Amino acid sequence: MTLQLDLKNNELSAAEISTLKEMRTRCAKRILLSTSLAASGHPGGSLSALDMMLVTYGMIKHFPDDPRCSLRDRIVVSIGHISPCVYSVLAENGYFSEDDFLRGFRRTGSGFPGHVESIAPGVEWDTGNLGQGLSTAVGMAQAFKSKKMDNRVVTFMGDGEHQKGQIVEAIRYAHKYKLDNLTVLVDRNHLQICGDTEDIMPQSIRGLYETLGWNVVYLEDGHDYNAIFQALAKAYQNTSGIPTVIVARTVMSKGISFMENLAKYHGSPLKPEQLAEAMEELGVDNEFNLWEEKRNNPVPTATIMAPETNTPDIDQGEPILYEADTMTDNRSAYGNALYSLAKANNLEGDTLKVVGVSCDLEGSVKMGDFHQHSPDGYFETGIQEHHAAAMAGAISCENLVAFFSTFGAFAVSEVYNQNRLSDFNHTNLKIVATHVGLDVGEDGPTHQCIDYLGLFKNYFRFSVCMPADPNQTDRIIRYVGGNPGNFFVGMGRSKTPVITDEQGNPFYGTDYVFTPGKGDWLRRGDAATIITYGAVTPKVIDAWQILKDEGISVGVINMASLLPLDNDILIEAAGKGPVITVEDHHVDTGLGVSAAAVFMDAGVTTKMKRLGVHQYGGSGKPAELYAQQGLDAVSIAKSVKDMLG
Amino acid sequence: MTLQLDLKNNELSAAEISTLKEMRTRCAKRILLSTSLAASGHPGGSLSALDMMLVTYGMIKHFPDDPRCSLRDRIVVSIGHISPCVYSVLAENGYFSEDDFLRGFRRTGSGFPGHVESIAPGVEWDTGNLGQGLSTAVGMAQAFKSKKMDNRVVTFMGDGEHQKGQIVEAIRYAHKYKLDNLTVLVDRNHLQICGDTEDIMPQSIRGLYETLGWNVVYLEDGHDYNAIFQALAKAYQNTSGIPTVIVARTVMSKGISFMENLAKYHGSPLKPEQLAEAMEELGVDNEFNLWEEKRNNPVPTATIMAPETNTPDIDQGEPILYEADTMTDNRSAYGNALYSLAKANNLEGDTLKVVGVSCDLEGSVKMGDFHQHSPDGYFETGIQEHHAAAMAGAISCENLVAFFSTFGAFAVSEVYNQNRLSDFNHTNLKIVATHVGLDVGEDGPTHQCIDYLGLFKNYFRFSVCMPADPNQTDRIIRYVGGNPGNFFVGMGRSKTPVITDEQGNPFYGTDYVFTPGKGDWLRRGDAATIITYGAVTPKVIDAWQILKDEGISVGVINMASLLPLDNDILIEAAGKGPVITVEDHHVDTGLGVSAAAVFMDAGVTTKMKRLGVHQYGGSGKPAELYAQQGLDAVSIAKSVKDMLG
Repeated sequence: MTLQLDLKNNELSAAEISTLKEMRTRCAKRILLSTSLAASGHPGGSLSALDMMLVTYGMIKHFPDDPRCSLRDRIVVSIGHISPCVYSVLAENGYFSEDDFLRGFRRTGSGFPGHVESIAPGVEWDTGNLGQGLSTAVGMAQAFKSKKMDNRVVTFMGDGEHQKGQIVEAIRYAHKYKLDNLTVLVDRNHLQICGDTEDIMPQSIRGLYETLGWNVVYLEDGHDYNAIFQALAKAYQNTSGIPTVIVARTVMSKGISFMENLAKYHGSPLKPEQLAEAMEELGVDNEFNLWEEKRNNPVPTATIMAPETNTPDIDQGEPILYEADTMTDNRSAYGNALYSLAKANNLEGDTLKVVGVSCDLEGSVKMGDFHQHSPDGYFETGIQEHHAAAMAGAISCENLVAFFSTFGAFAVSEVYNQNRLSDFNHTNLKIVATHVGLDVGEDGPTHQCIDYLGLFKNYFRFSVCMPADPNQTDRIIRYVGGNPGNFFVGMGRSKTPVITDEQGNPFYGTDYVFTPGKGDWLRRGDAATIITYGAVTPKVIDAWQILKDEGISVGVINMASLLPLDNDILIEAAGKGPVITVEDHHVDTGLGVSAAAVFMDAGVTTKMKRLGVHQYGGSGKPAELYAQQGLDAVSIAKSVKDMLG
Repeated sequence: MTLQLDLKNNELSAAEISTLKEMRTRCAKRILLSTSLAASGHPGGSLSALDMMLVTYGMIKHFPDDPRCSLRDRIVVSIGHISPCVYSVLAENGYFSEDDFLRGFRRTGSGFPGHVESIAPGVEWDTGNLGQGLSTAVGMAQAFKSKKMDNRVVTFMGDGEHQKGQIVEAIRYAHKYKLDNLTVLVDRNHLQICGDTEDIMPQSIRGLYETLGWNVVYLEDGHDYNAIFQALAKAYQNTSGIPTVIVARTVMSKGISFMENLAKYHGSPLKPEQLAEAMEELGVDNEFNLWEEKRNNPVPTATIMAPETNTPDIDQGEPILYEADTMTDNRSAYGNALYSLAKANNLEGDTLKVVGVSCDLEGSVKMGDFHQHSPDGYFETGIQEHHAAAMAGAISCENLVAFFSTFGAFAVSEVYNQNRLSDFNHTNLKIVATHVGLDVGEDGPTHQCIDYLGLFKNYFRFSVCMPADPNQTDRIIRYVGGNPGNFFVGMGRSKTPVITDEQGNPFYGTDYVFTPGKGDWLRRGDAATIITYGAVTPKVIDAWQILKDEGISVGVINMASLLPLDNDILIEAAGKGPVITVEDHHVDTGLGVSAAAVFMDAGVTTKMKRLGVHQYGGSGKPAELYAQQGLDAVSIAKSVKDMLG
């Protein structure tokens, strides 16, 4: 059944409170049953957040029969482990049946996993790692603001997770961008796994929000329906320009006397005999045996929601041609292409389509023109990369094409897990990182991202592209802007020549269309094939010339699409003779090892050599750093000759 | 020259102030010269922090002739880009000559890289990525407290970097652990790369520290030597149990009128003509041409400091034997071994040697016995993994063996970049992660770390070990505790059988000694070899039995050392026939691809198959999740048979 509380009322009626109490009993029963049936899970926090969640679903706009209706408000459950509470309340609201939930909870292949996932109808976002949900909620709230939509966002957070630094980043951002359409509910039960939050890591949660300028509301009893309703109703209608946090003092495992205020029930279910006692306290039948038997049947899968790809129609604009004698950096080509996408898609008076997120590096990543053209679509997070990455992922799911740009070390290495969580969530994120590889030069090893491929290969839903020149950059940026899914595009810092064919014409002319999973023969040759990508491509071309001048004819492949990889061209190359991979990347985690695996998988026999980064780079001119690691043209040519014997 | 300011004085003498002013002029000259010579670098912040740094070096205990003297205080420069300031002040204090610095700055192979690195005498820690230094400083301060040493720690921080959430984690931790031997200096120049800090991301830095219980001192003029001295002297002698932050209002590019308060000079040097003007304003000769000529010579390398491995002598204790019929989890074996190390090395009345860091998961990672035995050596960071990882790295360099333990998703994936920075810094960190792989089961994909190897392979100084059973866990933990360097040890969540030989005796008996880079033949066989490690090893043994029962004799290798890898045993196996790798890890970033690269590098031809995790795991019983990905015994046996045709 669905409860509809009227926001215009000053308080709840006796009938409404009575209904909420009945709902609570049914949900508490499900929480305890589900965890005992699974013999795992988190009953404690589920029971402490339950009352707030019941009232929330009684107030917000939501559509159980059409869970992804665009008019719906969003609820983000940052504490993903309270899945028993979430599923119980969603079942109560008619998103699915109690039967589906209790039979499926924490069973392989079901729609009701241990931490909430959006395969369950009504769940907006997969969570589980703490401290991430506020950034997600902020991203959604930002998307609504930017698109001038009046949907609201409510996020459920724990008190323990407030220790995570990323939360402070998100709090600051929400204040800066005046996200008054966002309400945070903090389940302040004062317990985390190892004990009292004040013993584990003391802090004032209210003080934190207050210092950072939020509306702070404290509820002395987070189980008092009227108090919750009044605070939430006010926050829900807030148009002050200031976001609201409601910190509610709750009791872990509320309602089951022998479980209350015990940290052990954070993550331990009741054993069957204790469950019987709890059911008695709730005044309900103990249906453990009934459901246990039902769980011997296959898991129900009818309610499982497919991931939704929500991305606007994009006009990719007109390609920009960089002539053969141009010397520019790929990041400028990125900036130009992004600006072109903005002009073609962010039309005055129309809904925003393309947005950008950066972290105090707008100029370096060349987002300036975009920012100037689409000020409402540019989000400056400051030096808060964890929040920025997570937020950008959430924004990208709200029918916006989201470009997230900063240096590789920050867009990739620093936020590896935030991007992993975006990957889980089937986002449509476009991470464009500049200052990748040894090409960063004098800023030295902390700034040299030589692991992008080694990191992105660990996900399952990211494509990785490394353009070799400004023309290819232009085409790739337009492609990733115009197509759904997660993309990483990496580029160096320095100016780089336009790649040409042997006749001296731009290889990637205006008729070139980027195709994921397709490598290009830049040069044909018989003695061996050099396979490369990104910033070292011009060096490989130079090596090709050196070898040619010495009468050695080698082929050169530009493998701009690294995920997916072009297995066919690899096997074709290996069929012609020895292959050598050359990359501005850690030699043991880049293209070379992937190619080796392709060859072994296919049973291809060939001589192979892998060139790449063998140690942390130094601080000096890129050309010197490349030479130090054997990645200059002369060294590459020598390696080819050594291999050929 | 070295200045020695007397902490007992109430104020500086006129002579001292005059000396400081002279030092400032020389240092300012070097800052501007060095960056203009390198045509890159960060003069603005260098000039705003300069006065505080000069006074600091005038007060602390330091030994220019013996830069790593154990009595020294520690200075951590969190804003690593102010290297021109740091090197200038160190040169002023006699750590090396001006000549070394100006000839070497930002040149390949020199000891003076663009962001500070400890190859320069006097530099304690390599920094560059913002927001990390406070965790480092906290780690050092914690080490001194725990070892009852009275060394002090001062850290230089920027205002922009205070946006990073990790800093809040470190602030909280320092308060909880009463680190009054720590002083933070904030260079509050109100500018970051893209503009005013209040425009980019508003926050009250003082408010932040105040809310979290620190002593907060504000200097209205961070260039007033007396004010700096008085505040620092008080902080330096602080024994209140409360750490101190000194927030000093400074002027970016202080002292050069046309550069002051301009954000562009954060990261841009002066052009030669502007430099001449600046030198005139400083009243010194412009030596640009002189030094530019000198920089045509090879870089001086005489002062480069080698990394120091600072680790105590460790008694590895008596191995614990888990009999063949024991069923326990590797994490319990870890807990037992760690407790054994504590008993053997943390002796009453003696200096602490072994410490542990965890993040609200003491029970789950089995650190309870250790904690109880060595309460002064156990550090509970709460749910603040970024800080915890960075701090643990710093602690591990202070003659302590530091074990950092939490779930794999948090110890590896969430803190990838923090561990990378430890790797740069040649730490002696022992990361022991539990709940690794699909073995996590019902907690689902956000908690399933299937990328540990894919991540650690991107560093250069980490060894990776994956024990197959409790006996091997025991021996590996003792080994990593007793040997210098960075180690990652991963293990699952579930109980697992003891690996035996064919006679049923424990394979890893008490005489087994773990050797990095060595795999073990658990079973010999001719038809093929299965290479595996970690949680799936028992499943491979079962598969071996299935195949044996069907008359197919395969060999089984346990590759517990994954970095370094045992190339010889791989090549030996390939020489015998087909090989198949089986791992509880992303199939494209684990052992399989590394083995493929070894084979291709060595020109070995063999049939090969890679089994592993092909998609995010579900939420269910581990056995089911393994079966879903073809990693159960029956599937493994079938894969072998398919491969053999």
